[in-house]
This record gives sequence, C-alpha cells and structure tokens, in this order.
Amino acid sequence: MQSWVEEIDRRARETLGQGRVADYIPALAEQDANRFGIAICTNDGARYTAGDAQEPFSIQSLSKVFLLTLALRAHGDALWQRVGLNPSGMPFNSLTQLEAERGKPRNPFINAGAIVVADHLVSAFATPSKHIQDIARTLSGNASILIDRHVLASEWQHRSRNAAMAYLMKAFGNIDNEVDAVLDAYFSCCSLRMSCLDLAVAMNYLAADGHALATGKSFITPDLARRINSIMFTCGMYDAAGDFAYRVGLPAKSGVGGGIVAIVPGRLSVCAWSPALDAAGNSVAAQHALELLTDKLGVRIANTAPAGVEGGSR
Amino acid sequence: MQSWVEEIDRRARETLGQGRVADYIPALAEQDANRFGIAICTNDGARYTAGDAQEPFSIQSLSKVFLLTLALRAHGDALWQRVGLNPSGMPFNSLTQLEAERGKPRNPFINAGAIVVADHLVSAFATPSKHIQDIARTLSGNASILIDRHVLASEWQHRSRNAAMAYLMKAFGNIDNEVDAVLDAYFSCCSLRMSCLDLAVAMNYLAADGHALATGKSFITPDLARRINSIMFTCGMYDAAGDFAYRVGLPAKSGVGGGIVAIVPGRLSVCAWSPALDAAGNSVAAQHALELLTDKLGVRIANTAPAGVEGGSR
Amino acid sequence: MQSWVEEIDRRARETLGQGRVADYIPALAEQDANRFGIAICTNDGARYTAGDAQEPFSIQSLSKVFLLTLALRAHGDALWQRVGLNPSGMPFNSLTQLEAERGKPRNPFINAGAIVVADHLVSAFATPSKHIQDIARTLSGNASILIDRHVLASEWQHRSRNAAMAYLMKAFGNIDNEVDAVLDAYFSCCSLRMSCLDLAVAMNYLAADGHALATGKSFITPDLARRINSIMFTCGMYDAAGDFAYRVGLPAKSGVGGGIVAIVPGRLSVCAWSPALDAAGNSVAAQHALELLTDKLGVRIANTAPAGVEGGSR
Amino acid sequence: MQSWVEEIDRRARETLGQGRVADYIPALAEQDANRFGIAICTNDGARYTAGDAQEPFSIQSLSKVFLLTLALRAHGDALWQRVGLNPSGMPFNSLTQLEAERGKPRNPFINAGAIVVADHLVSAFATPSKHIQDIARTLSGNASILIDRHVLASEWQHRSRNAAMAYLMKAFGNIDNEVDAVLDAYFSCCSLRMSCLDLAVAMNYLAADGHALATGKSFITPDLARRINSIMFTCGMYDAAGDFAYRVGLPAKSGVGGGIVAIVPGRLSVCAWSPALDAAGNSVAAQHALELLTDKLGVRIANTAPAGVEGGSR
Repeated sequence: MQSWVEEIDRRARETLGQGRVADYIPALAEQDANRFGIAICTNDGARYTAGDAQEPFSIQSLSKVFLLTLALRAHGDALWQRVGLNPSGMPFNSLTQLEAERGKPRNPFINAGAIVVADHLVSAFATPSKHIQDIARTLSGNASILIDRHVLASEWQHRSRNAAMAYLMKAFGNIDNEVDAVLDAYFSCCSLRMSCLDLAVAMNYLAADGHALATGKSFITPDLARRINSIMFTCGMYDAAGDFAYRVGLPAKSGVGGGIVAIVPGRLSVCAWSPALDAAGNSVAAQHALELLTDKLGVRIANTAPAGVEGGSR
Repeated sequence: MQSWVEEIDRRARETLGQGRVADYIPALAEQDANRFGIAICTNDGARYTAGDAQEPFSIQSLSKVFLLTLALRAHGDALWQRVGLNPSGMPFNSLTQLEAERGKPRNPFINAGAIVVADHLVSAFATPSKHIQDIARTLSGNASILIDRHVLASEWQHRSRNAAMAYLMKAFGNIDNEVDAVLDAYFSCCSLRMSCLDLAVAMNYLAADGHALATGKSFITPDLARRINSIMFTCGMYDAAGDFAYRVGLPAKSGVGGGIVAIVPGRLSVCAWSPALDAAGNSVAAQHALELLTDKLGVRIANTAPAGVEGGSR
Repeated sequence: MQSWVEEIDRRARETLGQGRVADYIPALAEQDANRFGIAICTNDGARYTAGDAQEPFSIQSLSKVFLLTLALRAHGDALWQRVGLNPSGMPFNSLTQLEAERGKPRNPFINAGAIVVADHLVSAFATPSKHIQDIARTLSGNASILIDRHVLASEWQHRSRNAAMAYLMKAFGNIDNEVDAVLDAYFSCCSLRMSCLDLAVAMNYLAADGHALATGKSFITPDLARRINSIMFTCGMYDAAGDFAYRVGLPAKSGVGGGIVAIVPGRLSVCAWSPALDAAGNSVAAQHALELLTDKLGVRIANTAPAGVEGGSR
Repeated sequence: MQSWVEEIDRRARETLGQGRVADYIPALAEQDANRFGIAICTNDGARYTAGDAQEPFSIQSLSKVFLLTLALRAHGDALWQRVGLNPSGMPFNSLTQLEAERGKPRNPFINAGAIVVADHLVSAFATPSKHIQDIARTLSGNASILIDRHVLASEWQHRSRNAAMAYLMKAFGNIDNEVDAVLDAYFSCCSLRMSCLDLAVAMNYLAADGHALATGKSFITPDLARRINSIMFTCGMYDAAGDFAYRVGLPAKSGVGGGIVAIVPGRLSVCAWSPALDAAGNSVAAQHALELLTDKLGVRIANTAPAGVEGGSR
C-alpha cells in the first residue's frame, strides 16, 4: 500500500494549480496552494503516508465530525430534536433555509448545524475549547495538537456570517447559551491544527466500529459509527455530496482548510489535504487523490459485498 | 432467510394504520392501505417472498431507476449536462429550485429530473412507453407486465404540476420534445404495474455489478451499477434520504405507490410495498420492513468491511 | 402644453441608445430602438402629441390594465379571492413566490395575476379575445385597432414560461379553464397594437373618475378608478415600482413593448413609448419623458393638495 | 373636523377586540388592547384630537420615518447605494431576500433597511440616540418626550432576530460600525414614547412640503418630502402596502406599537393608535380610522385632482 500512496501523491500533485485557496478569512488565504499530503491508517494500526502528510493545517469543518460524535455520545438521538440529518441542497452558510425551517439546521455538517452542536458542548463543559483539544489529542495520540490562535482571532474578527446564523437560531429558541460563547467554542474547534496523519489516526474509529486506535478502547458504539458514516455519505461534502458519492463513493468530510477525511468501513481511514478548493469548497487535489485510492482499492461502499456475509447466514 | 422474511412480514404489518395513502391522483387513492408485501432476490437467483409480494401495484417513482439506467446506458455522463446528481433538499415536485437553477433539475430522482430523462427517451425511441414496458418485462422475466391505462389516464388528467415543471424546463431550453409527448412517456413509466417479486428480480442488476438475473447477461457495467447505487443512497428517498441512510443505510428508491426497492450490493435486492405513506412520501411499513431486514442481516453499507479486500486483516 | 410635449419629445430622444429592446419573443425583438412617441389626453378631451405618437405598437402588459378593469367591473372584490393586490418584490414572471403562496399571484399586474384575470374572461365570454379587441376600440374611439397575428403566433410558440405559471396555478385549483384557452386569451390581449394616442385616450377613464372620454359615459365607478390607480402606483412598474414612485410619482403601467401609461388623477392621462428597456423591463426613454412631464406640471400625487378639499386653507 | 374626529373615534372603537397586541418583546405585550386615539394636525396648525390621543406609546417602526428623513437630509441619494427603495414583498424581518441580494435591504422601512440607516447615524453622531430624541422633541414641540428605558432593555434582551440581520449585512460589508452600537441606536429610536398628537405634529412636514410646524422653518425640501411620501405609499405598511393603498390610498407608516401616521399631502397629517394588530402587523382600529377619515374627506391621492391644476395648463 505504501507504493500506492506514493503513486497517488505523485498523480494528485498533477492537479495542483487548479482551484483557489479559501479566502473567507485572511488567516486561511495565507496557505500555500502547492502543498499536498495523504495519510492512510488501517484498522490494524498500519500507517502509510506521502507528501506533506505530517504538516499540520487548519482542520476547519473536519472538526464537525468530532463535534457531532461528542454530541451523539452525550445526548444520543435527542440531538435530532434540534438539528436534522438530511442534505440541505443549499450552500453551507445559507440563512434562507434556516429561516424557512424556523432555526432548525438541516444537518450537523453545515455551519448552522455545527453551531447548534457547539451550543450543546458549551452547556456540557466548563471549558469546551479545551475539551475539544483534549479529544483531538487523545484520538490522534499526538499531545502537541493546538488550537491556532492566529486563525481563531481571524475567525472571530470575520464572524459576521456565522454570528448571523447563530442569532437567527437563537431567535427561534435553538441556541441556549450566549452567542459569543457558542461562537468561541465553534471557532476553537475549526482552528485546531492537525496533520493528515493525525486526522487519519483520530478518525479511524469510524472505520473500526467505534474502536479508537490510539486508546485501544471503544470510543462509540458500532451502530453510532455506522450512522455517522451514513451522514457523511449524504451530507459530508457540502452541496457536492452527490457528485462525490458518484465519483468516489465513500463516507467523507471536507474542510475549507483543504483537508478531506474518508472512511472505508471495516478497513481503513484516510486523510488527504491540499489547500486549493473547487467551487463547492472541496479540495481539488484531495478529491482526486481519494478517487485514485478507491480505484486502486477497487472498493466503494455501494458496489462491493459486505465482508463475511458472502453466502452468509441465510 | 424465508423465515426472516415471514417474520418481517408479521412485524411490518404491525405498523399498518399509520400513514396515508397517496391521493394526488384519484387512481392511487383507491389503494387498500392494509396491503403489505416483501420479496428478496439474492444474486444467485434465490427468491423469498411474504405477504402480498406477488400483487402488482403502481410502481410510480420506482420507474425513475429504470429511466435513469436506460439514459446512462445510452448517453453516459453526457446526461449530467442536463440534470445534476446532488440531493435537492426540496420536495420532489418543487419549482423554486428549478427556477433558481435555470431549468436544470438537481438529480434524476426528483420529478423534474425524471422528466428530463424521459425527454431523452422520447428523442431516442419511436414508442418510448412500449420500450419501457419491454425493459420491465425483460428484466423481471415476467411477460405479463402492463402499463395501467386507468392510472395513466388519471396521471394525465391531473398533470398540471408536472406540466408546470416540464414547461419551465422547456423555457430554459432543457426539454427538446413537445411537453405533451414527454409527459406521456413519463406517466407511462410511472403507470407500470409490477409486484414486489417483479421489482426485486428486475432491479437485482444493481446488486450484481450490472448483471441481469432474468437474462443471464450483463445489463450495465459494474461501475455504472455502483454509481446508480450511490445516487440512490444520496437522493433515492425524496427529501428523507438522510433519515433513511441513518436508519437503514442501504441504497434505495421509493415510489408514492408505496413500493421501496433497496440494494445490498454484492448480495441481494429487495422490494417492500405497502400503500400508506409518511409525510415525506415514503411507505411507513415498507421502511420499517427494510430496517428490520438490515438489523437481521447485520449489514449496512456504511459499516461493514467490503468482501475480499486484500489486506483486510482484522 | 403642446410646446411642453414637443420639448419632452426632444429631450427624451437624447436617451435613445440606452437600454435594450425586449427579445423574449422574436416578434418584439424586431422593433426599432429609435422610435419615441408621447400623447397626452386631458380630461376635457384635448390631445397633445409628439414624435411617433400615432404609430401602433405591441401593448403587451399595458393590456393588464384593461383585463383588470373588466374583471373588477364584472366580479368586484370577489376577484381578490384569487389574486392579491400587494407588490410581489419578485420578477414579473417568477414561479417561486407563486409556489410558496399556493398558486395565488401577488397582484394582477404580474404575468401570473393577469393569467388568472384572463381565466375569468374566458369563463365569461364566448370569444374573449374579440371582446378585448372591442373594448380597446370602444375606449380609444379607434375602430381599426387589431390583434397582431404575427406577435400572437410568436407568443404562442414561446409560451413555455407562461404555460408553466398557468399549469402551476391550475395545480392549485386557481385556473378554471383549459390552460391553452386561457393563454390564447392572455396572449391576444398582449398582442393588441395601439398607438400612444389610442392608449392615452382609452385609459383616460382612470384620470376621470371612471368616465370614458370616447363614449361620453361612465365606464367604471370613481371608487374603482381610484383603486386601480392605487394598484398601478404600488405594482404597475414590475419590481421597480418604488423607484418610479420616487422619481415620477404617478400611477403608471409599463409594457415590454416599450409603452408606459401614467395617470394624473383628475386631470389627464399620458402614454409614452420607446422600445428600449432598462434592466427592470421599463422603457428608458418613456420613463425619462414622464419624469420630465411631472417636473413640468409640478405635480406628483404625493405632494400636492387635492383640489377642492374644503377647509384646505393654505 | 373636530366632530368628524369624534365620530371616527366612536366608530373605530367598534373594532376593538379584533387583532392581537404585539408580543415579540414582553414590554410591548403589556399594552392595553382597548386603547384608541387619533390626532389630526392641519398644515395651518389646527389640531383635532379624540380618545387617547395624548397618551404616549412606543412608536416602534414609526421611527423609521425620522431615521430616513435624517439620513436623506445628511446624505441625499447616496443612501440608495446601501438600501433600495422598492417594496420587498416579504415580511419585515425576513433574512431570505437580504441574503439573496447580498446584504442590501429592499427599502428603508423594513427592519434591515432601518438598521442600515441607523448605521449612518452612528457614523455621524457621537450620541445618536440623544440626537434622535432631540429631533423628536423639536419636531413635535414637546420637550418631555423620552426614550422608554424599559422597552429599550426588552428590545436589547430580545435582539436576536435584528442582530442576525445586522450581522448578515455586516458580512456583506453594508454595516460600518459595531453591530452592538448600531442596534443600540436603532432600538433607542424604536423605544421613543410619543402620543398621537406628538406624532401628527412632528410629521406634518411631510404634508407641508417639508416645512416644520413646530419650528416655523423648512426641515427638508419639498422634493424630498414628496419622495418620502412616495416611499411610504409603496413600502410603509409592511407587506400590506397594496391592500392599504387600495382601501385608504394615503402615504402612511405603521408601527407594531399600534400607531399609524398618514399624510394628506398639502393638507394635513394624522396619527391613529390602537395596540391590537392584524396578521400583517398593522393596527386594526387605526387602519379602520384612517379608512373612515379618507371616506369623510373624500380624498385619496390617487383619484383627486392636484390643487391648482384644475383645467389647467398653468
């Protein structure tokens, strides 16, 4: 697999030059468009990396996976009273649907949905941003992971759009805490800096029926892991979830920092990263890398027989 | 598996009485809400049925799967110039998004998208409705399948909403033929009467890498089968695709006649049917049956290791 | 006043070259952008004209004033069950609002609203298009007025957008007759050819408390004339009603043929015409002419004391 | 006229019991639904009052007239770069249109528009709320007018919806100052307590070509007064501007405190007040009173000859 990863690195770099680095906050716009990295972590703990796989970057919306996992662990299906789990069909930061649907976001992977999840966290923890940082460290086994204060300050300074969403939800009674505190927790999560390797390891629990590789313990139930994968498959790639499912066919989550995490259930987790994004906000090179990977592996979840059921128990 | 199917039949019938039979055309409103059937067809040809599995019903939107398959076979990815493949986030018959996106429907499983696909068919075949009927007969191996003339007449009489969509797309240049001819082809597909067993057999190609059970030949490529499954997973259940993915976790397509077809890739196809629908337009009892089935099988595509993946070392 | 009209003609022609001739149907796109005409008809019957004031042109949406007047004469306020009377805030041919408001158009001066009014007419008259032509002839005193068959055929051929609206309203139960018949009546009205002079004379009843100059008889009540003027003021200029009220300040109705009729209540009616339109669909030169006219007259309805108000002691 | 006013008071009170007192902030919900007052101020300074005409109430959106007047005095048409002047066709606190139109509100009489105008004020004055209070005192000639601190605190506590709008506009670059400062100025204006008599006197400048009765001096130009009246006519009554124009036919502005100010240009200003509102947010009894008044006066601006132009080509 190491040779595959290196080949993917080589071929994915051919797309460098396409797309644009996110500029909605200045701190992100500073990223170098020519970086690319990929890391694979198999369920038995083997790790394969290429390119800038150990370079920390701003995880941005990848943090929504951690946020959702924590909220479902703590509250279970009660969460779905406050946030839906269907694709939005709208840009990730739209207020139109949020207004029409009276402050209930469509799913936890659009900004409004993640802000509701962050509100849960603020209710539950005295220092929510520290809690998130601890979780990221524990799951990745990397104690040096930090919230990037420069990015956090930039998020705060340019918070208007997210503040508008938070206040709109508060107007409908769907935010319990002060908006400023909720945004601080939300931006702190987005501002975590992690590498492809950190993320592939940290999110391996979604490939491994909830079992966390770095701790050797169960983090969530197999059922919950499966459900989060389903949400990633239908809602994880902004409003290009269908395109990505058609091309790549794996549960995945994307961030405007250029990272994409994808899951091959039962087998491995993977993170690819490159800062330049397409019009939908997904990294051009990282998407290409994942398409190459699923071609190599010959697996997409929608066309291969689930393991162990062949000839199964019927 | 036969005993499972019978147990599912028994337990799914406990939900009879919930939901409402579709009434958007009078011919559908006549259906008996107390019917329930289920049929499973495994890739090796075994068939398991229970309840009203051999009772023909109006397949309605299930026909969109046949329409899409035919169009992709004929035109390949060129189809995506005229229709998208992302979740719409809107009701299946909405015009708002269609107007905002200049007559390009979000995906082929909402009405507008299927009408575009039907327009392709009208361009390609002298007698498109006969062609569809032939395909349904061939794939199911049942030469007695018919278009229900009573339902077709009712569809035509109550065509206003679909006509509005078709004319709006024509205004944007996305319908080539006369609207009346396109609607006739579209309604003919919707008006096919097939049983759960017919449908499980006919759609088994999606579980079997494109191989058609009734003909013993390849119908579409494995790659195309996988892509259609992906679209079913993200867009197949109206605007409840996410809910269904979360609960059931299989590629599926629903029709307002009360049928739902679901696919366990590499293993089997299944069709459940019961006329009463929930608010999203999906059969209450059929959804429940499919949830029971995936619990029984212990498989959902988002949490089980693909079969035969080398290196799958767990 | 004749010298004013000639000066306005001269100055309005300075704007020729700005804007674009409507091209939504080919028959309109043929118009010469360099034509300009203006006609004023005072309540005592005096007529003042300049430029191409006697050149017939396609009245298009100006016909909505006749349609509304006929429907209110026949049905009174019952009409408001089927169509609203508030500004739409949307483009004149939008379906989004129509869908959200369940097939009830915002007002009778957007296309959907006028189609509902035309549906009334089809219910009431065996030959609705002949009836409209007769009314236009009677009110203008010009028996040679005709429906332009070339424009009518072009409207029909390019009916998709209007057909979409009509079918959407029919889907909500707000169109009683066959869509084709309703569109034929609607397009016939739009296809009337009248000159500025014809229109100024024909619509003088709105300036004259409902009294028709050409017949010497009351056509509608003073109260109804006033109410139609109010609707023109708030809804007559597509979605630029507020801009026009701010600049010109008179009740007015615009058509994509380039004509605008405006009313100085109690005093006069005026029609200006020039084919090139601004982005909102209103004639550039005709708007400018009306602004010059209100400057000359020193009257806008929002700043001058109504005549003869007792106690008006200034 | 005093006897008219008393008769209107008597008849308008017959509608008490209809509608609902605004409850979007608790401080407004405390109002007594059975209060009704009316005050007329003619251009020669005569004042006629009935009922609770001297009872101060929360002017709420009536303050938008003062805000707009001040901004147009200071900035002229430059204001229209940041706010439109067309009817919105949407509820007064909607974010959907604001998002679609990239943070430029449709007109200065919806909340978002008034917040932009308040932002101007914050830029121009060190103590904007004191400035507004001074203007209200000066124009009404009543030095005891105050900002209601109880209402202001309630507005602030329940600011979420307006904060959402302000942040959304700031995200599009259409708010220069800190959102908190802008909202404080905006809420301070809304929280002014004035009586019907105060308001009729204070807004008489709109009836009198810009001349302020209480100061004896010109406050704005005649042209500006006319333009503001036009905006009131098309946009002053939330999304019922067309209904009100049809029924009453005067430029007017409504507030959720239950007050409505209307203008008979060239003649008089009037304010009616009663707390219970209809579904569009306009006072039931106050609207009825104004309809009775225009019936009595026999004037609506859309059907009566402007003064001094009768017969005439002056």
